[in-house]
Amino acid sequence: MENINPNKHISGQFNAELEDIRNRVLAMGGLVEQQLESALNALIAMDAELAQKVISGDHKVNGMEVSIDEECTRIIAKRQPAASDLRLIIAISKTITDLERIGDSCTRIAKAALDKDLNAQKPLLVSIENMGRHASRTLNSTLDALARMDADAALELHKSDAKIDKEYEGIIRQLMTFMMEDPRSIPDILDVLWAARAVERVGDRCKNICEYIIYYVKGKDVRHISYEDMEKEF
Amino acid sequence: MENINPNKHISGQFNAELEDIRNRVLAMGGLVEQQLESALNALIAMDAELAQKVISGDHKVNGMEVSIDEECTRIIAKRQPAASDLRLIIAISKTITDLERIGDSCTRIAKAALDKDLNAQKPLLVSIENMGRHASRTLNSTLDALARMDADAALELHKSDAKIDKEYEGIIRQLMTFMMEDPRSIPDILDVLWAARAVERVGDRCKNICEYIIYYVKGKDVRHISYEDMEKEF
Repeated sequence: MENINPNKHISGQFNAELEDIRNRVLAMGGLVEQQLESALNALIAMDAELAQKVISGDHKVNGMEVSIDEECTRIIAKRQPAASDLRLIIAISKTITDLERIGDSCTRIAKAALDKDLNAQKPLLVSIENMGRHASRTLNSTLDALARMDADAALELHKSDAKIDKEYEGIIRQLMTFMMEDPRSIPDILDVLWAARAVERVGDRCKNICEYIIYYVKGKDVRHISYEDMEKEF
Repeated sequence: MENINPNKHISGQFNAELEDIRNRVLAMGGLVEQQLESALNALIAMDAELAQKVISGDHKVNGMEVSIDEECTRIIAKRQPAASDLRLIIAISKTITDLERIGDSCTRIAKAALDKDLNAQKPLLVSIENMGRHASRTLNSTLDALARMDADAALELHKSDAKIDKEYEGIIRQLMTFMMEDPRSIPDILDVLWAARAVERVGDRCKNICEYIIYYVKGKDVRHISYEDMEKEF
């Protein structure tokens, strides 16, 4: 909250509006976090009921994206924000797109939990669980950095995505070996592979959100630049 | 161009700016189209040199995303647009994100062309080529609809993504059969699978762009709603 100075705007109403969309994007983040937790729990326990709950809950995430985006546009049209206020709205409007896609990843993970044959692949699911918990912690920390608009934390988190990528590569290699050893299991293992890929994408999305946090705080677009160049901005 | 009335704005400069970002997003679209064509050609001919050109050309796409986005923000701050002008800028700002991701898909397709072992999988690549050409035509028509801001065409194109999804499912089934028949080929076939997935994603991205066209023209956010509900908006 430190970046919003309540005395900065002539219009107290404008402040309230900015505060409101900040809160709404954090609430959306909280919901997506919950979806990810439930999707991972459903996959590990092969709990079809919980998986179904995740899948049917995705419309709430979608609805939040649309309504927050609408509010962002309304604020731009009505308040004609500039400088850091405009950057805040743009950062939020981009963040919700990535949060919505993380929601889609949760649905994909949950769908794998509906494939009853995967019960036989339980050992494989354990490595996905580990990567999943890692992604889940990254999402939690990203949302935390977003709540505090903490660019330093965002930069650190940005770096940590490489670890999830490494875990993912390891899992893919493992899945390949299993497929080669037991070709009949290929269709099931592909389901595991899609779930692993969905988890890996969560890490990518968190990285994007970290870039928006840095953009808001530093006023600099750091997409597509190397980590070294990014550090120079600090 | 029909939606921009040159007499509408008091500021002729503002018109010129809007016209300029429209042209720049179309130029970016043209570049991405070229990248997709080259990536598909590289994959079919297993042409490593062309593939390398696609991969090294991706930074141009990324650069265009950043510079157009910057220009969109600058226009919002300076011109304080409302109504359809604001929708145009928002639609463009979202479109370039999807174009940039299509660029990433091109890189992924090109990377598969670098895997020399895939030469043995040429028959498999033919089905990817067919789907790829289909995706490429969809991208071309989407950019055409964007140039004309034609919401009816966008709606039709939106529907056609289901066809690419069907082709994709067929390819995945085919790849699974090949893997089961010849487990030693699994690592190579997974490369084909990632390329197929990248092509399928191009279709999804085009669908997103169509939604932004409809949003601009109709002033209605049609994300996450059924095709039937979408048609009701027309």
